[in-house]
Amino acid sequence: MSAQDTRIIAFASDNYAGVHPAALEAIAEANVGFAPAYGDDPWTVRLRWRLRALFGESAEAFPVFNGTGGNVTALATIMLPFEAVICPETAHINVDECGAPERFTGGKLIDVKTADGKLTPELLLRHVVGIGDQHHVQARIVSITQPTELGTVYAPAEIAAVADAAHESGLLLHVDGARLFNAAVALGTELRGVTTDCGVDVLTLGGTKNGLLGAEAVVFLRPGLGERYEFVRKQGAQLASKMRFVSAQLLSLLEDGLWRETAGHANGMARRLAAGIETIPGVELAYPAQANAVFATLAKPVTERLLEHYRFYTWDEDAGVVRWMCSWQTSAADVDAFLDAIRAAKE
Amino acid sequence: MSAQDTRIIAFASDNYAGVHPAALEAIAEANVGFAPAYGDDPWTVRLRWRLRALFGESAEAFPVFNGTGGNVTALATIMLPFEAVICPETAHINVDECGAPERFTGGKLIDVKTADGKLTPELLLRHVVGIGDQHHVQARIVSITQPTELGTVYAPAEIAAVADAAHESGLLLHVDGARLFNAAVALGTELRGVTTDCGVDVLTLGGTKNGLLGAEAVVFLRPGLGERYEFVRKQGAQLASKMRFVSAQLLSLLEDGLWRETAGHANGMARRLAAGIETIPGVELAYPAQANAVFATLAKPVTERLLEHYRFYTWDEDAGVVRWMCSWQTSAADVDAFLDAIRAAKE
Amino acid sequence: MSAQDTRIIAFASDNYAGVHPAALEAIAEANVGFAPAYGDDPWTVRLRWRLRALFGESAEAFPVFNGTGGNVTALATIMLPFEAVICPETAHINVDECGAPERFTGGKLIDVKTADGKLTPELLLRHVVGIGDQHHVQARIVSITQPTELGTVYAPAEIAAVADAAHESGLLLHVDGARLFNAAVALGTELRGVTTDCGVDVLTLGGTKNGLLGAEAVVFLRPGLGERYEFVRKQGAQLASKMRFVSAQLLSLLEDGLWRETAGHANGMARRLAAGIETIPGVELAYPAQANAVFATLAKPVTERLLEHYRFYTWDEDAGVVRWMCSWQTSAADVDAFLDAIRAAKE
Amino acid sequence: MSAQDTRIIAFASDNYAGVHPAALEAIAEANVGFAPAYGDDPWTVRLRWRLRALFGESAEAFPVFNGTGGNVTALATIMLPFEAVICPETAHINVDECGAPERFTGGKLIDVKTADGKLTPELLLRHVVGIGDQHHVQARIVSITQPTELGTVYAPAEIAAVADAAHESGLLLHVDGARLFNAAVALGTELRGVTTDCGVDVLTLGGTKNGLLGAEAVVFLRPGLGERYEFVRKQGAQLASKMRFVSAQLLSLLEDGLWRETAGHANGMARRLAAGIETIPGVELAYPAQANAVFATLAKPVTERLLEHYRFYTWDEDAGVVRWMCSWQTSAADVDAFLDAIRAAKE
Repeated sequence: MSAQDTRIIAFASDNYAGVHPAALEAIAEANVGFAPAYGDDPWTVRLRWRLRALFGESAEAFPVFNGTGGNVTALATIMLPFEAVICPETAHINVDECGAPERFTGGKLIDVKTADGKLTPELLLRHVVGIGDQHHVQARIVSITQPTELGTVYAPAEIAAVADAAHESGLLLHVDGARLFNAAVALGTELRGVTTDCGVDVLTLGGTKNGLLGAEAVVFLRPGLGERYEFVRKQGAQLASKMRFVSAQLLSLLEDGLWRETAGHANGMARRLAAGIETIPGVELAYPAQANAVFATLAKPVTERLLEHYRFYTWDEDAGVVRWMCSWQTSAADVDAFLDAIRAAKE
Repeated sequence: MSAQDTRIIAFASDNYAGVHPAALEAIAEANVGFAPAYGDDPWTVRLRWRLRALFGESAEAFPVFNGTGGNVTALATIMLPFEAVICPETAHINVDECGAPERFTGGKLIDVKTADGKLTPELLLRHVVGIGDQHHVQARIVSITQPTELGTVYAPAEIAAVADAAHESGLLLHVDGARLFNAAVALGTELRGVTTDCGVDVLTLGGTKNGLLGAEAVVFLRPGLGERYEFVRKQGAQLASKMRFVSAQLLSLLEDGLWRETAGHANGMARRLAAGIETIPGVELAYPAQANAVFATLAKPVTERLLEHYRFYTWDEDAGVVRWMCSWQTSAADVDAFLDAIRAAKE
Repeated sequence: MSAQDTRIIAFASDNYAGVHPAALEAIAEANVGFAPAYGDDPWTVRLRWRLRALFGESAEAFPVFNGTGGNVTALATIMLPFEAVICPETAHINVDECGAPERFTGGKLIDVKTADGKLTPELLLRHVVGIGDQHHVQARIVSITQPTELGTVYAPAEIAAVADAAHESGLLLHVDGARLFNAAVALGTELRGVTTDCGVDVLTLGGTKNGLLGAEAVVFLRPGLGERYEFVRKQGAQLASKMRFVSAQLLSLLEDGLWRETAGHANGMARRLAAGIETIPGVELAYPAQANAVFATLAKPVTERLLEHYRFYTWDEDAGVVRWMCSWQTSAADVDAFLDAIRAAKE
Repeated sequence: MSAQDTRIIAFASDNYAGVHPAALEAIAEANVGFAPAYGDDPWTVRLRWRLRALFGESAEAFPVFNGTGGNVTALATIMLPFEAVICPETAHINVDECGAPERFTGGKLIDVKTADGKLTPELLLRHVVGIGDQHHVQARIVSITQPTELGTVYAPAEIAAVADAAHESGLLLHVDGARLFNAAVALGTELRGVTTDCGVDVLTLGGTKNGLLGAEAVVFLRPGLGERYEFVRKQGAQLASKMRFVSAQLLSLLEDGLWRETAGHANGMARRLAAGIETIPGVELAYPAQANAVFATLAKPVTERLLEHYRFYTWDEDAGVVRWMCSWQTSAADVDAFLDAIRAAKE
């Protein structure tokens, strides 16, 4: 299969994309003889300082292998087994982690129906019930995904409102930021503008979907919150031995602002795709394409014809909603060819 | 810090070493545009076939991120929470995984004192007690490490004897093969000669300590044993999204027999170091240096002087035992310089 | 506080009632010197045979302390941590067990909105999704409560339909029978008529709410399903040492059909209360009072006035729904006095 | 089987004994109509005050069903999953709870060989290692059993020494007091004299083995330690609905000092048995009989002949050690008849 041939699967997921050359280069540059393992290396130290510069003085960052690992260890650090996490029904932790949060934390997820994947103070507060009652799990964390699994983006004020509601109820706010870079670019903010400055307490920051080989980080933003995290990370099997190579990847995104370029490119491709779709009768956007995902509603036969040539996921069989993801590696030509294919499938 | 300077920490651990150029090259070669995520890619398919060729037709292999992750997901797949794992007291799962096996499996580790890190049928059978008694955990797995954490190597017949004893008692045999390549080279056997052919049921195969960036695999050798493993791996947060790059690393070690070269080199350096030590009065080998680890007993002041210039771990404070690891990247010059330093510290 | 005074709390819950004299007598009769502990006693043997007579030859019964303990150990015996339980949103396991099912099983509860607390094949099948997909929990158990937490009763045909749908999807059916006796009496069936004969696989059978001091049983109805249960029960801390007294209590309900009398009385009192309510304008039944619970909707000021003299629980603050429970110990005079009080509160 | 016949199993365990008449009477007296469930009843309130009077102002007591349930919920309340419990190898939590502590806490038990079941500061401190090292479980609790599972009793000064060593290392001291009453009587102290006054932080207090039907309590002695216990108890399925009957049982032991009488009787019978044994050549005490257990070493054929007529447990097959327990219900005639039987078996 040539690199060209691989483009027919480009819209299936942003983790179908490869590794950005800068990340590979960073790995090679970190490969200079021996270095202490388990995070006691210069790259990890640099990363921690870099993330403090980006997220604020109190930020304590810890590299991990993947998003699920980051989410479950972050949650388990700040909750007890009789406590609960309130999250949208569509949350990755709720539907795509095979029960990892429940198994590792011992606690419960309370999932909330939303219109567009976004939690609001009102929706949230409706589920803060039974506090102090020994028969009920005790709500402790609110977890939101930014951008959401439906491709929508919380405005900073929306996150701040959720954070305020959470804090007033004695809860903490976790953000699953598997694609946080895409959200920040979409909003035109700094990273701390959608996190620290909004009152987020802990963040899972994703690099893999934005061009890395495999590198994420758990970032505690509230002072003291991550004090015991290193033990939880190890017990959760998320402690990399040759951590320098995980940290070096993240540094490649962060040090020269590459993240803006890659995430911005992915978002731009999604906008191009969405704009094209709006010109095709009978194909509708299911949600606004605010980051790098495009959700569209189309007739089943059209989907079927399109699937003969392209690989992507059906999100809602009954409603005819499909998901198309753009990545740092998606080209304008890919998008245009795909739009042509949609048009052809419609006939 | 220059690459040269890093050599003063070379003996601390084999995961202080960097990535072998062949592994980096394999990663770059796999970076050809888009590829399906989560294992549905050509490299992972090739890896699974390659491991079948090496370990036997029934072998079912699954890449994971790290050794602890491999161990706990492998164990959890073949035991229930009321069951137990019998292992040597010195086992990595018992002392170096921060309780991950207990937390993830819900079960108990029954640790056994040994002379040299090696379990024997006699030691093992002494702990298969209370079977059928509802008050007792039910022994289900025997877990051994090959080579052991003390640098000793089980002969194939020794593993077969443990496997037989385990099977006769209705138990399964797990091998923590974080350094299995070193054992196979030391014994001059094929990989299956120390595993499948000895009756091993499931294996955690390590690549990271033998020159990879971060790549291990869980390999089920007994037919059917791993049927539910994919769910356990995901729930255990060990499912890589861009798995092709994990698989490609493992392939780089396996396809042209590179593993023999790298592990053989590391073992050779350990032999060189051990041989040198035997010429130094007052420094004794604590265990035979059969793979790539050298354990030595030396006077405390000597250790202290040596630690002023080199970084390594004290294994047993009271007994004055220290551990020196060799890797694919350790050079003969490193060893000789270190021997000189030991001699100097003795004066 | 005199026994008379205690009646003002009679409607709060059926576990506010005391112990039926026959149960106390049975305890005293079992108190004849020494008896083997942990279930190896004649009363427990008799109970197991008695439950086989009632539930069918394959029934394997195990006494436990309480309903939550019975539920979580039953579920954990027949599922793995990456599997899931589908249950109504209102299920006791979902809202009243402080996350015990998640913590003990490691798995996920998938809760389903229902009209009246009852699951249907259609509702159930909508949630059997992602089977075989490693990212999703694997639905394994359907759990229903009979009668439901809302006081409604499944007809045998309804349970059979749920059982069939579950089995066709490869799932097992668990019944939380904390008040199963009330359901059987309400339906006029034998115990097996609402369980074994409908295809139920495992049952938590409650005695405490029907006049016992504290005695429940887990009953496996499908052959072989409970083979490992004794270990799970012990690990779940539900193994009574002086089990004869737990078994003797259950025998007091079962041996002379006392359960029909006590449950029938409770149901009759609920019917009397419901009938009375229907004559009071402005107070409505929220659900049909089919067992021993009465759910009513009334104006907030009425509830408040009533709560000045009586203790009971508000079920839905917003909708103004309250719950009134009847028990083996509720008298007709209690009901009539309570109806008078409702009428008075309405003025 | 007549009550007389049951006496041939009297020495098997103290939980083979029945229920003391005073406990049954207390249950009957608490059976006065309706009472709030889940601990909000007058008997539980009285019990909590009574235990404060006995253990000190800070004592916070919570009734539970059984010893294993009390132990695991107590431990889980004061440790995190990456922490560990140091206990003697012979501890009930280590060998007789089917792995319940590991499963419920998620943590590790570090078991220590002892001479007589008693932990010492020296033994304990040897296992407080790797503190702060992310690869190691973090020792958090020391758990001792008083009297031990081998029938030996810690002097108050011995407990105080263990408590001091624990506290100086930042650990907490848990006492499994399944037979605490026997220890207090043996030492001639008040209950707080072997617990609170020695620095014990949390206690599992057993009633069942001392004449109750089934009633234990978790008692937090250090202020604030049990603040979240009610949630852990519920999640651990140890919350009794009709708790008044559990509390009333404990009150029957505690309010008129009945515990001294029953435990004193059991201890006296053990002393009588031990004294008799010392007159029989060829039968030796394996440990001093300081509470209500007698461990003896005898020749295998003698044990076998004795087992033809009496039921009891072999503790150490190889060493020929058996265990004989005395209880509140064991009579002097039982002991004398048993001594005769031992003598007869010797011939």
